[in-house]
Amino acid sequence: MKTSRNVPRRIGILGGMGPAAAIDLQAKILAATPAATDSEHLPIVVWNLPQVPDRVAAVLGTGPSPVAAMTAGARALEAAGCEAFAVACNTAHYWAEELADAVGIPLLHIADAAVEAIARRPLPPMRIGILATRGTLAAAFYGTRLAQRGFEWIAPTEDEQARFVDRAIERVKAGDIEGARAPFEGAAAALADRGADLILMACTELPLAAGGARSPVPLLDAGQALAEAIVAYSLGFATAGGTKPNGPEGIS
Amino acid sequence: MKTSRNVPRRIGILGGMGPAAAIDLQAKILAATPAATDSEHLPIVVWNLPQVPDRVAAVLGTGPSPVAAMTAGARALEAAGCEAFAVACNTAHYWAEELADAVGIPLLHIADAAVEAIARRPLPPMRIGILATRGTLAAAFYGTRLAQRGFEWIAPTEDEQARFVDRAIERVKAGDIEGARAPFEGAAAALADRGADLILMACTELPLAAGGARSPVPLLDAGQALAEAIVAYSLGFATAGGTKPNGPEGIS
Repeated sequence: MKTSRNVPRRIGILGGMGPAAAIDLQAKILAATPAATDSEHLPIVVWNLPQVPDRVAAVLGTGPSPVAAMTAGARALEAAGCEAFAVACNTAHYWAEELADAVGIPLLHIADAAVEAIARRPLPPMRIGILATRGTLAAAFYGTRLAQRGFEWIAPTEDEQARFVDRAIERVKAGDIEGARAPFEGAAAALADRGADLILMACTELPLAAGGARSPVPLLDAGQALAEAIVAYSLGFATAGGTKPNGPEGIS
Repeated sequence: MKTSRNVPRRIGILGGMGPAAAIDLQAKILAATPAATDSEHLPIVVWNLPQVPDRVAAVLGTGPSPVAAMTAGARALEAAGCEAFAVACNTAHYWAEELADAVGIPLLHIADAAVEAIARRPLPPMRIGILATRGTLAAAFYGTRLAQRGFEWIAPTEDEQARFVDRAIERVKAGDIEGARAPFEGAAAALADRGADLILMACTELPLAAGGARSPVPLLDAGQALAEAIVAYSLGFATAGGTKPNGPEGIS
C-alpha cells in the first residue's frame, strides 16, 4: 500500500451504459471522498456517450458488439490525461480485457472492488448470492473472482432471473422504482433460501430497487465498492486491482 | 430555429466549480431529455477537475485567476469532440469571453438560458430579483442581459447579501440544507418586498436551499434553464445563444 498523495490521480469514467449509472457513480465518488473544500475532491473526467450497442444483447450473441464505441471512450479518457479509468456498467466488464488492452492506463475493475469490499467485511460471508443482468452472469467475472478468493457463490435460477431480477431491472429502467421493489425482494429471498448470507447487487439499477426493500441478509452494492476503490486509488491508498491475488487464495 | 437532428450534438460540461454542481447539471440534463431508451440520451463529456482557484475571490481581486485552469478544461472538451460546451458554475461566467475565445466551439451561456426561460414565461415578470454570489453580481452578466431584454432587476442590499444569501450558500456548501432554508426565505422575502415578482436563483447552491422553502413570488433556477437549453441545442431545436438579441429588445 502506498502512502497518500498530495495531488490526487485523475480518474476517467467510461459511462453511457446507461447515462444515469455514470451520474450515480460520480455522486457516490463525491460522497465517498474525504473533502472539506471543493478543491479536495477528485479530478474526474466523464465520457458519457450513450450511443453504445446494447451490452446484454451482445454478450448473449443477439446484437452487435459495443467494443468499438467503448474503446473509443477509453482512449478519449486516456487522451484527457486520466491516470486510470473505471466503467460505470457491470455488464460492460465482459469486455474488460479488450478495454484494458486498448489503453496504457489501468482499468479499476468493478468486480475487483466488490470482492475486496466483501473480503473486508468484519463477518465474511460464506455464500454470496449474485444479482445481475444475464450478460454479467454469462460473463462470469464475479464468480471467477469470488471463487479465487475462496467464496462460494450462487446465482438465481432461470425462473428467478426472469420473474425477479430481469423484472426489477426493467422496472427501474422504466422509472418505476416502486414496482421494482417486490421483484427485488423476491430475488433476495430466493437466494437467501438457498443459503446466501450476502446479496451482491452487481447491476447499477438494483440498488435503486433495494431502497426500502426487505432482505433476509445484508446487501452489498458493487457500484458503491467501485466508488470507494476509485477514491482510494486516486488518493494513493491503493494500487489498480487493489490487493487482488494473482491466483486462488481461499479464506474458507 | 433548426429542425431536429438525427444525431444529437456532443456537449461538454466544464465542471469542478464545485464538483457537485457538475453532477447536478448532468442529472438535470438527463431528466430534461425526452428519451425512452439509454441511447436516446445526449452524448456528454464532463471535465470535473475541482483544482481551480476560487472564483469569487478572483472576481473580487483577492485571489489568483482561475482562467488558465478553466481554458485548459474547455480545450480538453473541444479535443474530445464536443460541439458546444457549458459551464456548471454561475460565477465562472465572469470569464465567459476568455473561455469562448480559447476554443472554436460555442459556449452555451447560463445567463442566456435563464433570460430566455424568463422571456418564455406565460406571465412575464416586471422586476426580477437576482440571488447570486458576490462574484456573479460583480460580473453583472445577468443584469446586462435582463436590461437588454427590457426587464427591470434588483439585487440584495449589502446587509441582505451578508445575512441571507452568503449564509444560505455557505450552509449548502457545508451540507446543511436545513440551515440554508431560513436565510434563503429571508432573501426571497426582502426582494419581493421591494417589488420583485420573480426570484432568479443564479447560483447552483440556492435551489437546494429553496427545497421546501417559502417564497412570496415564483422562483426560477438558472441551472434548470441551462439544462433545458443544452438539451434543445444538442437535439437541434436551438442555436448557441438561443434567440438572444444582439441589442436591446424590450418587452416592457
